[in-house]
Amino acid sequence: MMPEFQRPRGTRDFGPEEMAKRQFVESEMRETARLFGFGEVMTPTFESTDLFIAKSGEDIVGELYAFEDKGNRNIALRPELTASVMRFYVNEMQSLPKPVKVFYYGNMFRYERPQAGRYREFFQFGAELIGAPSIEADAEVIALALATLKNIGLEDVVVRIGHLSILQSILDRTTISESEKRECRRIIDKGEIDKLKSILPDDAINELNMLFSNPDKVSSVLNTYPGVDYLRQLLNRLKAYGFTNCTVDFSVARGLDYYTGMVFEIDAPSLGAEKQICGGGAYKLADLFGGQEVNSTGFAFGFDRIILALENSEVEVPKQMLNAYILPIGDSARLPATEILMKLRNAGISTDMDLMGRNMSKAMKYANNIGAQKVIIIGEKELTEESVTVRDMKSGEQELVSISKIVQFITGCLN
Amino acid sequence: MMPEFQRPRGTRDFGPEEMAKRQFVESEMRETARLFGFGEVMTPTFESTDLFIAKSGEDIVGELYAFEDKGNRNIALRPELTASVMRFYVNEMQSLPKPVKVFYYGNMFRYERPQAGRYREFFQFGAELIGAPSIEADAEVIALALATLKNIGLEDVVVRIGHLSILQSILDRTTISESEKRECRRIIDKGEIDKLKSILPDDAINELNMLFSNPDKVSSVLNTYPGVDYLRQLLNRLKAYGFTNCTVDFSVARGLDYYTGMVFEIDAPSLGAEKQICGGGAYKLADLFGGQEVNSTGFAFGFDRIILALENSEVEVPKQMLNAYILPIGDSARLPATEILMKLRNAGISTDMDLMGRNMSKAMKYANNIGAQKVIIIGEKELTEESVTVRDMKSGEQELVSISKIVQFITGCLN
Repeated sequence: MMPEFQRPRGTRDFGPEEMAKRQFVESEMRETARLFGFGEVMTPTFESTDLFIAKSGEDIVGELYAFEDKGNRNIALRPELTASVMRFYVNEMQSLPKPVKVFYYGNMFRYERPQAGRYREFFQFGAELIGAPSIEADAEVIALALATLKNIGLEDVVVRIGHLSILQSILDRTTISESEKRECRRIIDKGEIDKLKSILPDDAINELNMLFSNPDKVSSVLNTYPGVDYLRQLLNRLKAYGFTNCTVDFSVARGLDYYTGMVFEIDAPSLGAEKQICGGGAYKLADLFGGQEVNSTGFAFGFDRIILALENSEVEVPKQMLNAYILPIGDSARLPATEILMKLRNAGISTDMDLMGRNMSKAMKYANNIGAQKVIIIGEKELTEESVTVRDMKSGEQELVSISKIVQFITGCLN
Repeated sequence: MMPEFQRPRGTRDFGPEEMAKRQFVESEMRETARLFGFGEVMTPTFESTDLFIAKSGEDIVGELYAFEDKGNRNIALRPELTASVMRFYVNEMQSLPKPVKVFYYGNMFRYERPQAGRYREFFQFGAELIGAPSIEADAEVIALALATLKNIGLEDVVVRIGHLSILQSILDRTTISESEKRECRRIIDKGEIDKLKSILPDDAINELNMLFSNPDKVSSVLNTYPGVDYLRQLLNRLKAYGFTNCTVDFSVARGLDYYTGMVFEIDAPSLGAEKQICGGGAYKLADLFGGQEVNSTGFAFGFDRIILALENSEVEVPKQMLNAYILPIGDSARLPATEILMKLRNAGISTDMDLMGRNMSKAMKYANNIGAQKVIIIGEKELTEESVTVRDMKSGEQELVSISKIVQFITGCLN
């Protein structure tokens, strides 16, 4: 029979196995942020459309799920979370002692043609550090991103750090207009250097190519650029944080106007062409939203790509196992079996019980199917001896265990 | 300065303190479901509007955030999650061995006038048990709801269980039409018995009033109703699960047509008029969505009301504390301080560091403000002795601790 209803195009349903994996990664991210002293925030799923226009320009509307609500307000499903978090900051957190360190995990939406690894509803985990001197903030935020990836077991990553003032100083030496400069940054951000030829003079392009190709080789000329000494200090601090794998890449441009200084991206090479899993940098947004100007640094992880990268890297993610499966034999065993069921659950042992009246062989097949580690067989004969039979699903061995010791027994087997 | 952007009406922003509380409750709910052998699922935030109409009728559209996407599809932000989960079940889980036990946590949306405790974006945690015999499923699902509330510390609750066949048998003895019967159920669900007078004959109303007023007192006549023996058995099973606080309430009617038998509600009396925190029952929906007919039982918690009830009941929710706050004195202390910072964080000790260059007295004030348990002062003098000063923020006592023993020392203090 053909199902009558399909989920909307470009969206996903996640089953228990997938969710266990996602939940593990989400928890590790949350825990790392907590260890770093960041506090979680949550904002509404939709905002007034104007908020996103203020941050990203009118063009963003084409990619939004934007609509009028029944009160004729223009609202849009959020395409990202920095705008919402900074709105929240401006409305309610400006007077808090600095720095304000917050993180978020959430879904967001973009109306675009669905393609491999790109969905209309997708997920990001991100952090914003607001109101600290820039180098302290930049180092702490990059360190959080790297510690998080380390804690989830994704260590095969490339960290590329740039500084917009270097790009800017080259563009400023040309005679192109501000909007052309902006266009250049977008082109560079997309890695389409060839397209610069119609805007920039040859010497500027040569200079950019030299900078982009190998920043280490040009270290002698680098000192002439603003921001280079800053990046040296930043890399030094990241070393103190224990992260020695950061590289300098002046072609990191982040396409958007509100970035002010340091910018960074992290790639997972295993992902191939769509390899970027994190983007961030120093920015100013609060003033755009009616607040006081304040230095901020933030990043966002592409959560879905990180899950993909973990799968590619064959990183072991703990599986959700069912510790025990109870099979009551006969109706009179059901109530005593229920008591044992709850004893185990209350002791933190994940336990299921046959609800279908399965016979022994079908129950064993089912227990195997759902990945139960132990099967506890409770029959009338066993009950008269105040005992149950415990079968180890791996070895196939069976043992008679006293009901009064069942929690202890199962706990002992699992440790 | 007036902020330029406000969050949409009827929605909320959650700060770190609130989120720590919500995250704790969410984790406990998830963990209890896991102990019961339920697996988590997640479905898209929006669905085709038709799905919700199929489940709840055309009237639902008035309460939906419904809109046309750019491909002219009618989609709506989900107003609840059972419809989505059953759509997912029909599309992808029908062939799994039974029972299918799933749970979800998510946000949902309803366009209505915002009022105290009711929001346009709100949250539910729920579970569905699909494909088991009804009494097994009903007992397991109610037990999950009750165990969850127990595990989050909310024990001051009233559980009311009814059975629609009892109500139905009374209505069936009248001559009213099917749509009038449906209307009666909705009226009873809202507790507006007086309004039945225009539809039902007096003797039916008297009978209902007798049943609703005190089900225990009428036990001698109860045996004449279908479903009563079922409820007795169900209460008996719930006792085996360890739950003796369930009461029978025949006025639980759940306003919707797809409920088929047992229905239940849980109240938190501390919430006053809007006291219901959970609703559920046995239902059939899969066939409505193009799947094979299958028995299901499910419930949903009103997550926001549960948070409110926990606050009213003064249940202690673990606070998110910062274990340590590091104050480097002078620029040369900053890099060694960063190394100590990461040592602590890597050992699972939540630690923050001064990023603002605060002096001692301001740093102590800030550390106090953010609730740090220890302040670690790292000055040039201490560093020459490979030591740091650790100050306990509660007692005010200070101690010189060797850097090589700092993790051990702080861990020891926290246990």
